[in-house]
This record gives sequence, C-alpha cells and structure tokens, in this order.
Amino acid sequence: MSDNPPPLPIARTVEALRATVRDWKRHGFTVGFVPTMGALHEGHLTLVREAGRRADKVVASVFVNPTQFAAHEDLGTYPRREAQDATLLAGAGCDLLFAPTVDQMYPEGFVTAVSVGGPSQGLETDFRPHFFGGVAVVVAKLLNQVQADVAVFGEKDYQQLMVVTRMARDLDIPTRIVGSPTERDGHGLALSSRNAYLSEDELAIARRLNGVLAEAAIKAADKRPLAAVERDAYAEILKAGFQRVDYVAVRRADDLATFPNGVVDGPARILVAAWLGKTRLIDNMPV
Amino acid sequence: MSDNPPPLPIARTVEALRATVRDWKRHGFTVGFVPTMGALHEGHLTLVREAGRRADKVVASVFVNPTQFAAHEDLGTYPRREAQDATLLAGAGCDLLFAPTVDQMYPEGFVTAVSVGGPSQGLETDFRPHFFGGVAVVVAKLLNQVQADVAVFGEKDYQQLMVVTRMARDLDIPTRIVGSPTERDGHGLALSSRNAYLSEDELAIARRLNGVLAEAAIKAADKRPLAAVERDAYAEILKAGFQRVDYVAVRRADDLATFPNGVVDGPARILVAAWLGKTRLIDNMPV
Repeated sequence: MSDNPPPLPIARTVEALRATVRDWKRHGFTVGFVPTMGALHEGHLTLVREAGRRADKVVASVFVNPTQFAAHEDLGTYPRREAQDATLLAGAGCDLLFAPTVDQMYPEGFVTAVSVGGPSQGLETDFRPHFFGGVAVVVAKLLNQVQADVAVFGEKDYQQLMVVTRMARDLDIPTRIVGSPTERDGHGLALSSRNAYLSEDELAIARRLNGVLAEAAIKAADKRPLAAVERDAYAEILKAGFQRVDYVAVRRADDLATFPNGVVDGPARILVAAWLGKTRLIDNMPV
Repeated sequence: MSDNPPPLPIARTVEALRATVRDWKRHGFTVGFVPTMGALHEGHLTLVREAGRRADKVVASVFVNPTQFAAHEDLGTYPRREAQDATLLAGAGCDLLFAPTVDQMYPEGFVTAVSVGGPSQGLETDFRPHFFGGVAVVVAKLLNQVQADVAVFGEKDYQQLMVVTRMARDLDIPTRIVGSPTERDGHGLALSSRNAYLSEDELAIARRLNGVLAEAAIKAADKRPLAAVERDAYAEILKAGFQRVDYVAVRRADDLATFPNGVVDGPARILVAAWLGKTRLIDNMPV
C-alpha cells in the first residue's frame, strides 16, 4: 500500500493520444485539456484541477514549442523536468500526459501558418513579433489532436487566452476555451516557470509588480486618463527596481483594443511586461 | 407512392449541423463530407457517391465563399440554385445539406488567417494571390464544423486538393482528405460549374484542352525537357482558340514543386489555366 498516486500514462504520439481519448469517448466520458510547456507549478495544477471539475477525464500536454521562441530567447534553457511534472500532474488528477517530440509536431514538409489579428496586435507582439504565430499553430494542432470538450488556459497569459479564444471561435474548433484566474504566491507575485530564474533580490522586486498594477487598475477604473495612469505605472515599476518595462497598458478586456476616448468605458484589463536582469515577467489583472 | 427521393434536410447553422452529426455518431455511423460552392454537376455528384461508399452518412455543404474571390472576379454572378442542388444531392445519396449564410461563417470580429506554403506556391497563386488563403480558412472551418471521418475533394482542383491535404495534416484536423478523379464530358472536357458560361463556339474550343494536356503529359513522361513541353503546350492551347494561357506546367505530384533537373524523375502532374472570353478554365492530369 502506498499514498503515491499511480504512475501517469504518457502518450508520445498523436495516435496513442487519440486511441486513449477515443476509448474514453466510447465510454461516454467528457474530456478536458490543459496545454503546458512543462516546468509545472501550482498555477498549472490549478488549471488541471479546473479541467477535472469541468470534464470526466483530463489530458495535459507538455511541449516546449520551438516556434514561439525567437532565436535570442530562452528555448535552450527553458526548464525541462518531465518526471517531476508527471508526478505533479497525477497528484492534481490528470489522467494522461501527452508529451510529443518536436518531430512528431513538426514533421518534414510542415508549411502551415495561422495568424490571428485583433487581440494579437500590440502588447506582446510589439516585443515578440513571432510569438502568437507560434502559439496559434501549436494550440490549433493540440486542440485538434486531443479533441477535448473543454480546454483550460491561465489568465496569467491573458493576451494568449484572448488570441486562442478568438482563433478557436474563428476556425470553429469544437473545444470550449476557458480561462482560469492567475495563481499568486503569498506576496501576490504571479506564479510563472520563469520565476525560477530570479535571484533572491530580484524576487523581492518582482513581488512589488502586482501592487503597482493594482494601484493603476484602481485609478483606471476611476476614469483617470489612461495616458497618465500608464505613464505613472511605468515609472513606479522602474522605481520598484525593474530594469526595463516593455509595456504597461490598459486595454479593452475582450479584444485588447485601446479605449478610443483615452478613459475606461467598458470591461478592461491592465497588462504588463517588464525585465529583471535577463528575466522577462508578465502579469495582468482586471480593471 | 413516388419515385422522388425524400426532400433533403438542410442545416443553416453550425449548431443544427452538429446536432445531426452528433446524433449519427451516437448511433455509430461514420460521416463523409463533400464541400461545394453549389451549381452542382455530375462531377460533384461523383464526389457525393464516393463519400457514400466511404461512410455511412454524407454531408454536402453549399457555400459560395466570398474570401476566395478577388474584387474583380465572378462572386456576384457565380451561379446559385439551391433547390436544384438539393434535389441532385438527395438523388446522389446525400443525407444532409449544410448551407450556412456568410454571416454564420464570418461573424463580426472574425480575424483569423491560415496560410499554407509548399503546394500553394505558384500556379493559381501567381494569378489569384488571395485564393488559397480564402480556401484554407473556409475548409479548416468546414472540416471543424462537420467533424467528418472523411472528406472528398475533386482532383479537378488539384492544387487545392494538395493544399487542403497539407493543411489538414499540418493542423492535425482529424478528417481524412481523399481525392476523386475528374469527371469529363463525352469529349474529355473537365466538368465545371463555369462551363455554363461558355458559348457553343467556346465549348467546342474548350473541348480541345484535354487533348493538348494528354499529348504534353506523354512527352513529359518520355523525359523530354519540360521547358520545351510546356512551351509547345502553351502554343497549342492558343492555337486551339483560347485567348490567353495563365500557365501550363508539369510539377511534382505531391508538393507541386518544379523538377530541379527540368525533366520528370518522379510522380508528376500537368496543370493548366486558360481563358476563353471572360471564362477561366482549369484542368490537370497525371503524367
């Protein structure tokens, strides 16, 4: 007898994945899906548990997608630890880990691109122009591979959630896309695999970011001019100790367009990307 | 008592379509799909019958997709005759007609594009640069809407068949793409909805096209230099009475790349697009 969860089955090919999902569906089970790049933390496990509340069976994928990294980014050093990830997933109620190889996902002759306008414009795209093209293709593939009833994405990557939601709707992918609120540590820092890169000093600075955002969100909700709200937040983030701010911006919550009158007049979100040494952190919250 | 087939059910929304397909799948039926732009002729009905041989139930769609027409093309005058199409489909063994509106397919806020490199490069794209972008999106949508086991496309639009096959594979759309040989009239003219535009004189000229192609295919298979084969075929098509030739080309059969040595050294296809008055005809055949 043991308190350990049973070892998690791992599918390494689309065929193996589909065989399991087909079997589940034949038995009348609904299927939830959580795509990840591994290096799992409590934020991912919250998504897995949310998928488990919404479906009978849960698939999680671990795939560090090369097409959403630029040449100068951290593809090579992005943390990979499958055995630990599998144990964590099993404990959170995941039923199958899908861990394909790069060759399995992008075989020779692969030539298809997916681009989503609207919510993918600006913000991340201004600094990582390749990013959402890579995300859109890999998520379209994963959704079509798994054929889940519901897929759960973190609000931590809010622009990504909006892009994926828009793409799935536009291409009629028959999986419902659901967002799940960001998990934070005791100091309000959004959980991220990239937090592992931070030194103790950097961690202390990083934990100030959510406070700056929350303060700016209150001012924005108070109908202060957004240009001033964003300028002040920008300065506060630098004052907190960040070396560089890619953006801090208040946008419409659904399509991430700017507010034409320069003040919030509908559902809104504040989003930020900023640098601590070589680490780029992103965060966001509702206004 | 009547010899008429029963009236064909028509789904005008994705919800209605999916309800029927879901019901079929619950009963264990497999599903075949034939996408069309209507104005059906014997070529389309062959595809429907082929789908019926490969699956228990057959869906055909009729949707004149605006995004694959350029502003100067024949979107406005493209023939539309739904009642007649429905009768023909029912007679060929179709079980459901899916006939969505443009608003149903492209609601406000639609922003997603799909581009397929490889087989979409050159040939049609040199003359209709917008075309395969429009095709890729609408076919991705239709395949995801219907969720068929198999979809049948005509070899008449051979480049389209290769683009759709590549896209479905790249995006892991779980529908098998199958090509079906071109139907021809008694004179070898490939059946096409656009043949209806031809005058009697033009029809007589159009019927010479397949002979020119067949002759060029024999020369290409005989390892004659492709530059000369294509140049001769070009001249023969004009001599037959066509006003203009967009292209006549021998390409690799799978990815439509040119043969690097200028002679056929593997599976090949000859493809043509040429004009008779205001009508643009395409055709192709294996080499």
